[in-house]
Amino acid sequence: MGFIVDGAKPDRTTMSGSHSAFLQHLDAAAKDIDSLLDQLLSATPVDGELSRPARLIEAIRYSSLGGGKRFRPFLVVESAALFAVPRPRALMAGAALECVHCYSLVHDDLPAMDNDDLRRGQPTTHRAFDEATAILAGDGLLTFAFDILSRRETHPGADVRIDLVTALARAAGLGGMAGGQMLDLAAEGRFAGNVPLKLDENSVLMLQAMKTGALLRFACTAGGILGSANSAQRNALERFGSAVGQAFQIADDLLDLEGDPALVGKSTGKDAVAGKATMVGVLGGPAAKARLQKLVEEAEDALAPFGEAANILVEGARFVADRHA
Amino acid sequence: MGFIVDGAKPDRTTMSGSHSAFLQHLDAAAKDIDSLLDQLLSATPVDGELSRPARLIEAIRYSSLGGGKRFRPFLVVESAALFAVPRPRALMAGAALECVHCYSLVHDDLPAMDNDDLRRGQPTTHRAFDEATAILAGDGLLTFAFDILSRRETHPGADVRIDLVTALARAAGLGGMAGGQMLDLAAEGRFAGNVPLKLDENSVLMLQAMKTGALLRFACTAGGILGSANSAQRNALERFGSAVGQAFQIADDLLDLEGDPALVGKSTGKDAVAGKATMVGVLGGPAAKARLQKLVEEAEDALAPFGEAANILVEGARFVADRHA
Repeated sequence: MGFIVDGAKPDRTTMSGSHSAFLQHLDAAAKDIDSLLDQLLSATPVDGELSRPARLIEAIRYSSLGGGKRFRPFLVVESAALFAVPRPRALMAGAALECVHCYSLVHDDLPAMDNDDLRRGQPTTHRAFDEATAILAGDGLLTFAFDILSRRETHPGADVRIDLVTALARAAGLGGMAGGQMLDLAAEGRFAGNVPLKLDENSVLMLQAMKTGALLRFACTAGGILGSANSAQRNALERFGSAVGQAFQIADDLLDLEGDPALVGKSTGKDAVAGKATMVGVLGGPAAKARLQKLVEEAEDALAPFGEAANILVEGARFVADRHA
Repeated sequence: MGFIVDGAKPDRTTMSGSHSAFLQHLDAAAKDIDSLLDQLLSATPVDGELSRPARLIEAIRYSSLGGGKRFRPFLVVESAALFAVPRPRALMAGAALECVHCYSLVHDDLPAMDNDDLRRGQPTTHRAFDEATAILAGDGLLTFAFDILSRRETHPGADVRIDLVTALARAAGLGGMAGGQMLDLAAEGRFAGNVPLKLDENSVLMLQAMKTGALLRFACTAGGILGSANSAQRNALERFGSAVGQAFQIADDLLDLEGDPALVGKSTGKDAVAGKATMVGVLGGPAAKARLQKLVEEAEDALAPFGEAANILVEGARFVADRHA
């Protein structure tokens, strides 16, 4: 799933100073998540596990500790901070979410899917290991996400943890990310007897709301679940997550169309060439840029009730939108 | 993962009458699980899902409603019955477990793994659809298992549901089934620069305890979790599950070596030809049969404290062991 410029360092030279606080928080979340994942994914089995086979844990670590920017965990941490949730709990939920994100990258890179050789400037997992190991590493990461969410360190309340499990399963599963990837493959005409589809705006919105939007919405609402937010607050976070998700995707598509491969860290122009269903394709570049601006306003508006406490999240939304500039 | 004779009807002609009560319970559990999965895997999205794309839900239904014997759900239902757990709750947990089992079959059948064309006498999912769809169907089923466990219908107590999530994640994940599959691929010498390994008895036991044993142990302990069993009772169920798992595997290997392909429903002799790590290979046929007998006694012994209430489960263990005869 073509996500944020994975692994490419934010290009600070093109960025206004207003992003600096956001970038500090993003870096801090990334460091904490890397450290937590490193610890959770040690070679030592935990209660209920018999062993952690060396090749599998190596492939899983390769797939998840390879330097992503951890934007999703950042969203979890900062949305949780709105409710004064202890940071270690937010990091657990963020680590679980990142496992799901990384599993999706490993499986989407497989030869039968997008057949990519590079990810974050490194060989993809099936290139660094082999296809069978990559499939298992993805399966292991997905499963581990639910292990993490179920642990007491994520939240002392079992009801809160189970709410997170439900929400993540729905965001990642057949009615969320996996379903979105299915729609995307269908739109590209990747099956026998299936020609590429010319999707209209609503179909593209649905596809992207599932494929990339669902995890980003989960990231924002997870903080609310951890913080026992009321329903108005949860709705605000959901609205924010939805706007960020759409902005994220449009900026990614603009970047893919116009970006410098050296900065992006993966080949560019590929989505456009493949005729992928994107809002840029449906609306055209100028209208897509206008839409992006509206989405940033929508994101700001959604979090207005939280006041200045939401500044970092709002900056995050602006940063996401500015990436293409 | 080479499991029980998936889809082949139990061959009642070779069976003593003592199995008939077991078979009735097995059939009843299978019918209820099929009906529940059919309902859970409808085309209609639930709260938190945006849509259930037709091709994906079709592939998921193809992979999970294809007529397995539902031995794992049977174990959940019958172990739960020891604690008078309402049957609908046990069926939910059984359905979740069956989703994990079916996902493992879909992914293990992939060309990069065991490259199988037939499963339960039908084309494997990647043959009936395509590889990308099969990968996504497996991912979707695995994710859906945790969705099911997290629902109130599984148990009103969030603490019980979260215990099930932890237990299933550990049984299925990198330290359980997925890890066991990794060990198996390594033993078969399936990677570049990796020759087939000659495993000793303990290594084979570990591999199988992970690859097939972990889900079978979960099946038995799930009933105890649902029934708030005390620790002695949980240990008894764990011991039973472990014995059944080992017996299951030895009988499967004997069947694979000696069985009639027409009855087994898949090609036989394949494991032996590929030099797979099995107890039959390590111990030889006669000693493996003696071990099988001891495991049945161990299974009976483990459940002795439950008295006649455990008769059906004990019959299940005997049936599993007798399959090869």
